[in-house]
Amino acid sequence: MKLQVALDNIKIRDAIDLLKEIACLTDIVEIGTPLIMENGLESVKIIKREFPRLPLLADLKIMDAGGLEAGMAFEAGADIVTVLGVSHDATIKAVVDAAGCHGGKVMADMICVKDLEQRAKEIDKSGVDFICVHTAFDVHSRGGNPLEDLGKVGRVVKKAGTALAGGIKLENFMAAISERPEIIIVGGGITGQRDKKGTAKAMKEMMGHH
Amino acid sequence: MKLQVALDNIKIRDAIDLLKEIACLTDIVEIGTPLIMENGLESVKIIKREFPRLPLLADLKIMDAGGLEAGMAFEAGADIVTVLGVSHDATIKAVVDAAGCHGGKVMADMICVKDLEQRAKEIDKSGVDFICVHTAFDVHSRGGNPLEDLGKVGRVVKKAGTALAGGIKLENFMAAISERPEIIIVGGGITGQRDKKGTAKAMKEMMGHH
Repeated sequence: MKLQVALDNIKIRDAIDLLKEIACLTDIVEIGTPLIMENGLESVKIIKREFPRLPLLADLKIMDAGGLEAGMAFEAGADIVTVLGVSHDATIKAVVDAAGCHGGKVMADMICVKDLEQRAKEIDKSGVDFICVHTAFDVHSRGGNPLEDLGKVGRVVKKAGTALAGGIKLENFMAAISERPEIIIVGGGITGQRDKKGTAKAMKEMMGHH
Repeated sequence: MKLQVALDNIKIRDAIDLLKEIACLTDIVEIGTPLIMENGLESVKIIKREFPRLPLLADLKIMDAGGLEAGMAFEAGADIVTVLGVSHDATIKAVVDAAGCHGGKVMADMICVKDLEQRAKEIDKSGVDFICVHTAFDVHSRGGNPLEDLGKVGRVVKKAGTALAGGIKLENFMAAISERPEIIIVGGGITGQRDKKGTAKAMKEMMGHH
């Protein structure tokens, strides 16, 4: 089980300082959409240069022009890119092809997918590496049951690993672990905490014990 | 009727050179997703500084964290941002609120929306300024009927203007005009042509005569 730390609402310099503290506890570092908006793929290049051995996911949420956009990200040094599960099959295929070409990996983000099981089955066949059940930031407070959704996806996928994202923090971390996703993605649950390193360490220990 | 020129697969310096040629023929300039990926919102700032009177759309395709992402774009100088029609209502509302706060506008991109009429009705009520019928780049060659889709959307929206994007070029421009969208978006149909200025001029003339 891997801990992915999402760097979202953070400046690039602060992101580097944070990673200096928690790199050894981080399995995958996510360059979040706002950080890409701020500096473009330069954010990917900077983090890759500072932490060359840390696997790096670029959260591009690709919706179209999959070959072009994924290719740009892999060339900038991303190891994994995200494509939206709501996008066309042709877009997902183009991203998977680009990953194959560059030796990268693909995570499909299932945010706002209506028929989760059916779409997860289809996407699993397309050759993505991970399928991520993702509760939108804008609806975190509205309930829904991401763990139940993760279970649904886990039961239908045959090839892809599963990932869980959205509103995960120390308080609900054990519940997240219990569904055994391959990757657990934490953003503000670490980056918004006072003791960032202690929180990441506690999470890694919970993963290790499970 | 307005001509929006989409700058997608182009370097920022080439984009500036192109705009020097066609700024007077361009009603809205679109900073495309790949250009934002490349330089982040710096692309918006650079184009705004060079062409301060040209209305500027940042094609962020916002899917989540609507308030944060739209706010960043408006602060960088964007006049219009895009939000995905497939995103949560809460995300669209957050983008509309950010636009209200910054005096900006919002275009909902209907790419990959399944029930176009129903979703257009819902989104129209949310207060977006434009609803864009958009054929994905990755499926341009597969048919579908964007003009028919535009007609459907045009018949159900009451407040928002309509826009049309995807695969529009000089050859099918008159057909696009005939459905009377408020905005016609052209990317490669201008930027990929040998005579870019002549093509943009011909399109503006066709719009003027109609």
